[in-house]
Amino acid sequence: LKAAALRVLERDGYHKMRIADVTREAGVAQGLFYHYFKDLKSLTLEVLTEYAQASADVDRIERDVPRGDWYARIYAYNLMVVRSYARRPGVMRCLLQLADEDEAFSGMLRENYRDQLMWLVDVMPKLFPDVRFKKHQALMVVYSIAGVGEGLVREYFINESKTLRAAELDEAQMAELLSTCFYRALFLEHPDSKQLKYTRNLAAMARVH
Amino acid sequence: LKAAALRVLERDGYHKMRIADVTREAGVAQGLFYHYFKDLKSLTLEVLTEYAQASADVDRIERDVPRGDWYARIYAYNLMVVRSYARRPGVMRCLLQLADEDEAFSGMLRENYRDQLMWLVDVMPKLFPDVRFKKHQALMVVYSIAGVGEGLVREYFINESKTLRAAELDEAQMAELLSTCFYRALFLEHPDSKQLKYTRNLAAMARVH
Repeated sequence: LKAAALRVLERDGYHKMRIADVTREAGVAQGLFYHYFKDLKSLTLEVLTEYAQASADVDRIERDVPRGDWYARIYAYNLMVVRSYARRPGVMRCLLQLADEDEAFSGMLRENYRDQLMWLVDVMPKLFPDVRFKKHQALMVVYSIAGVGEGLVREYFINESKTLRAAELDEAQMAELLSTCFYRALFLEHPDSKQLKYTRNLAAMARVH
Repeated sequence: LKAAALRVLERDGYHKMRIADVTREAGVAQGLFYHYFKDLKSLTLEVLTEYAQASADVDRIERDVPRGDWYARIYAYNLMVVRSYARRPGVMRCLLQLADEDEAFSGMLRENYRDQLMWLVDVMPKLFPDVRFKKHQALMVVYSIAGVGEGLVREYFINESKTLRAAELDEAQMAELLSTCFYRALFLEHPDSKQLKYTRNLAAMARVH
């Protein structure tokens, strides 16, 4: 039923989904639903929570990242985000809708998000000792930069803006773009061109005085 | 009635607002409502559309920006956004909710947003001639960087996250932070320290090899 619900959420969205849709998709009798779930909302919450937590699995994301390779690490995270949006835009929209309606679910998502940023926040003072961050400043900087590409992926994958779709980026290119922008804001330099394809030419994007 | 509706939206939110709340807030008889509006949704749409468009008034935003001062221009836009969230977080939440429910309203907001970014997209090839942007690449870069701080202002002003609130930033500091991050990603340099207060120390935030 949960796998079926994920497919129905992707196709029809949260507000349109009915219990009969889920049981039909799963190929089981409608009565069986109440054997496992109280109502549609509790099923949805369970399915989306599992989906969100699977996407945020840090160990899996960092598995192939070489130690000390910051660009590769940032890219791994962005690729995970881009994939979630590219492959399940309908589910991602449901996630945002439900976050707006359900306090506990919203809290869980925001905590996931914060946990992912916190490892970077914690390492900032060691990474940039000369900065002498003011109180809470590293936290604010990381949250600010983490917004890179947020509107873009929503507009590109969920709203399917025609203007943006004209660029025809694949998942790897989109992840590279987001990672490059993030890396530039964080390190004040362009990532090593050996690691780049789509954004290599952007190294020349720099102020000339 | 419109000014009253804006106050009620800020206080109670869109889903809780009733017609009686608006007429009471405006100090008029309830019957008068239908003299001016078809229903609550059309009033809300009108009020929020006016609010969104007033906030996006380019001429007003750019009024005090010296010619060629990129940082000042970026700051002026960010200050406008930060103010909208800081002063009317409830209204901003309604705006996001309604955008999710109403296709036409969502289209209007997204077009406003695109128009604000387009002047920068158009100027990118002149600003960075050495880059030789690939097709649509300038558009994607600007959209990507424009996400800076998006999650932060939502989390800080709408969700009032305790973790973030501990930083106690005022409107000017928040706008400065967003502008600095945006400027770094765009120009690959830190803004001139003469223009900075809160983020001056972040100039030392740079990769050491």
